[in-house]
Amino acid sequence: PIAVSRKHSIATMGADGIGPEVINAGVQVLKKLAELDGSFTLDFKNYDWSSETYRKTGKYIPDGGLEELQKHDAILFGAVGAPDVPDHISLWGLRLAICQPFQQYANVRPTKIFRGTQSPLRNAAHSDLDWVIVRENSEGEYAGQGGRSHRGQPWETATEVSIFSRHGVERIMRFAFQMAQKRPRKFLTVVTKSNAQRNGMVLWDEVAVDVAKDFPDVKWDKMLVDAMTCRMVLDPKSLDTIVATNLHADILSDLAAALAGSIGIAPTSNLDPTRKNPSMFEPIHGSAFDITGKGVANPVGTFWTAVEMLKWLSEEEAAKRMMDAVETVTERGVMTKDLGGTAGTQEVTDAVCAELEKAF
Amino acid sequence: PIAVSRKHSIATMGADGIGPEVINAGVQVLKKLAELDGSFTLDFKNYDWSSETYRKTGKYIPDGGLEELQKHDAILFGAVGAPDVPDHISLWGLRLAICQPFQQYANVRPTKIFRGTQSPLRNAAHSDLDWVIVRENSEGEYAGQGGRSHRGQPWETATEVSIFSRHGVERIMRFAFQMAQKRPRKFLTVVTKSNAQRNGMVLWDEVAVDVAKDFPDVKWDKMLVDAMTCRMVLDPKSLDTIVATNLHADILSDLAAALAGSIGIAPTSNLDPTRKNPSMFEPIHGSAFDITGKGVANPVGTFWTAVEMLKWLSEEEAAKRMMDAVETVTERGVMTKDLGGTAGTQEVTDAVCAELEKAF
Ligand SMILES: CC(C)[C@H](C(=O)O)[C@@H](O)C(=O)O
Ligand SMILES: CC(C)[C@H](C(=O)O)[C@@H](O)C(=O)O
Repeated sequence: PIAVSRKHSIATMGADGIGPEVINAGVQVLKKLAELDGSFTLDFKNYDWSSETYRKTGKYIPDGGLEELQKHDAILFGAVGAPDVPDHISLWGLRLAICQPFQQYANVRPTKIFRGTQSPLRNAAHSDLDWVIVRENSEGEYAGQGGRSHRGQPWETATEVSIFSRHGVERIMRFAFQMAQKRPRKFLTVVTKSNAQRNGMVLWDEVAVDVAKDFPDVKWDKMLVDAMTCRMVLDPKSLDTIVATNLHADILSDLAAALAGSIGIAPTSNLDPTRKNPSMFEPIHGSAFDITGKGVANPVGTFWTAVEMLKWLSEEEAAKRMMDAVETVTERGVMTKDLGGTAGTQEVTDAVCAELEKAF
Repeated sequence: PIAVSRKHSIATMGADGIGPEVINAGVQVLKKLAELDGSFTLDFKNYDWSSETYRKTGKYIPDGGLEELQKHDAILFGAVGAPDVPDHISLWGLRLAICQPFQQYANVRPTKIFRGTQSPLRNAAHSDLDWVIVRENSEGEYAGQGGRSHRGQPWETATEVSIFSRHGVERIMRFAFQMAQKRPRKFLTVVTKSNAQRNGMVLWDEVAVDVAKDFPDVKWDKMLVDAMTCRMVLDPKSLDTIVATNLHADILSDLAAALAGSIGIAPTSNLDPTRKNPSMFEPIHGSAFDITGKGVANPVGTFWTAVEMLKWLSEEEAAKRMMDAVETVTERGVMTKDLGGTAGTQEVTDAVCAELEKAF
């Protein structure tokens, strides 16, 4: 046998709701892929941290948990959120508690109209909508600052404080320009709201101008976040790579997924571009407790997520094969109910594995 | 002649770009309407404050300007913004400088699919999309707080501070519940982002629960702003009245107008519901310098705006007649280029006046 040259160690974390089911499906396909390919190996280690852990122990991540995760090359994450835990506790307790210390400052959200699916937009051809949204993932509106004074009094005042550091803005801007540079159109749209917000947003504008000088081959333009929603709806093919703040990109990426008809199957990557810490990959769909345990959860979001993870691990060839297999299966109509099909999680998973067999 | 019982004094302010042209068109139609109706009068007084004033005098509003405006029952506003003035200066210099001291805390943005126009959504019938977005208009992300420290240094930090006062949140929430109560479906959606922003946004959630108790006949639900964009795209008819923060509603209302195919014709009302100060009415389209002075600006946004103003002045009957006339003209294809027609501003204006003649 040929010596395996590349080994990747993957932490898996299904967490809540359908999370463990879709991660299980993702791992099956990844194992099949690595086996067929033969030029790399994937070692999986599972962590069962979840809202269940929180209920039992009062925390999501046990002591020493981050040091454990640190040993892996990547984290494949399911979904966090449970009906009996306030959303802000689960979010800050698990997802942000990994993203922020690991400085996964670049959140990447590709959107496209998947083969076999359709855009809700009347005039959008498949090729019209092929975007990557780069979301600042470490500060801004999610910096966790602000407070409430005079709680419950008629004169109560609450604040939400968004923090924009030049360091933080520069690194995400540079990452976004690099991303745009790698894509065929070499075109970046920088989103802000600097007409209304005159501090951090103006800093974004200034940094964009500065960083752009280092990327003379990348064309770029600026949009206000409100007008950006119109452009996404009315002129999708005028867009390619997009960079925006934590909150703006949160909103725009949900809109993007809806317009592409890919809500429920879109992936998101939380990257530490310095590669000092592992990066984390997750489907955007959430925990979906209403269908948990029924074997009907759509694994395609996790498959697309796994593809993004493989790319990050420089397994470009394998990533491409996997994406092709997934889209072929969807195009053939083997899909779960949310996409208009009748298949269960395992049936879709088996179909993708079978497709991979054919590809090698 | 019958004694005129109701007199309304209107301040008009075209301001920048196509603003004066569309306000001129609006005034023509309003004069014709009042003349035909005969039961009320409208007195107009024009104020020529604009970016031109700013260039000459360093301010948009002259000394004593607000006291002048205060004398009127309503303000009909065109658009502010000029290519050579930074947007944040024109915005804070004129529009916010009127809205904020006049405590026009409720910004109301109706959206519907206008007769003669089409939604870009494949599956949206005309009746599926009939929304009113209530935007908090006095604080939140537009409170004007925040700053920049260590400007230009690698360790520079900027902040944007959103302020949410219980007073401010309560009054907008109450206004929104009242608005929902008056509409046939009696249904309100409260938008926040309380999973990520744990202070002001949680206050919104709490106040919604409190205020709802006073409106037992209004059904309501909660949405996170990101998921809200998906619902607007994928399930428009599940929505009716919507309330959101200054920034969230800014974004959602642009999206709404785009989805309704009414970007460029949608109106917005800046209301002081206490009626201590005049309220201000404006089309959302902006100054559009590229077509200024060419006689091709679309006056329909201003007409719809004038309709909203008439409603606020309790001229419900006249408002309805004007809206019907405008939609009839649009439906007949007499429209400007942006809506797919060939007519100029004056031709559309004349057609609406002629339609009004028929209606009385
Ligand atoms: C779950 C939620 C807090 C999260 C976010 O706002 O970041 C989600 O909407 C996302 O886009 O990943
Ligand atoms: C011009 C701009 C500052 C304004 C806003 O953000 O309020 C506009 O987008 C609007 O929606 O009225």
